[in-house]
Amino acid sequence: MSGIEWVVDAQGCSAESLRDSRLLRSLFDKLIGDLRLRPVGVTQWHQFPGSGGITGLCLLSESHLACHTFPEHGSLCLNLFCCLPREAWDFEWYLREKFSATSVQVRTIERPYGSTVAVKAETFLAIGGQNG
Amino acid sequence: MSGIEWVVDAQGCSAESLRDSRLLRSLFDKLIGDLRLRPVGVTQWHQFPGSGGITGLCLLSESHLACHTFPEHGSLCLNLFCCLPREAWDFEWYLREKFSATSVQVRTIERPYGSTVAVKAETFLAIGGQNG
Repeated sequence: MSGIEWVVDAQGCSAESLRDSRLLRSLFDKLIGDLRLRPVGVTQWHQFPGSGGITGLCLLSESHLACHTFPEHGSLCLNLFCCLPREAWDFEWYLREKFSATSVQVRTIERPYGSTVAVKAETFLAIGGQNG
Repeated sequence: MSGIEWVVDAQGCSAESLRDSRLLRSLFDKLIGDLRLRPVGVTQWHQFPGSGGITGLCLLSESHLACHTFPEHGSLCLNLFCCLPREAWDFEWYLREKFSATSVQVRTIERPYGSTVAVKAETFLAIGGQNG
């Protein structure tokens, strides 16, 4: 049994968009709505001083959602870890459309948490979990 | 330019240890101390009801630290994303020693956030970043 983590790295984004907390909140809201994620508590947001970026961390029943922006590099790094199955989401389209990303790399990682210790991560197919 | 993310999945842990918030706080404190990480604000902790596990999320100047436990499966999933270089840390030893893990998988993922869009993630060697 395993969960899925999406590891998303976008580059070539507009620096202005990466300092716009409303855009980042909208990204989280859209993901949470579309994928029926269930936040537990309040999302933590931090804006780094000066020309720095923004970090957001959201604790989910399904695990977590995290995002970091680096305006000086035009880049955005996002993680979404779901211990329950969710359909694919078009990270690339959204980040190109809303943040003007010119390049988006989306990787999916299996996160084994089942009790069959001897089974290697790569052999897990089913996705399921404790938290809903 | 890229950061490093450690993706750690431990199995065969004692269920009791995975419901012990003090042990998880100690894990975070040890990582933060040893790797000279700089938390921004207060770590969020959530204990799922009944026999559920614990989630912890810590916003760092260097990115983030996240942990989820699944006592019913004897497993623990941890992420540490550092946008600045840090030495290796012996996740395996610690999780075997403190949580009685019988199997620990440690993966490292490069997270590109440099401004050279055309360069593939795999070619990044230098690790550096905005936030310290």
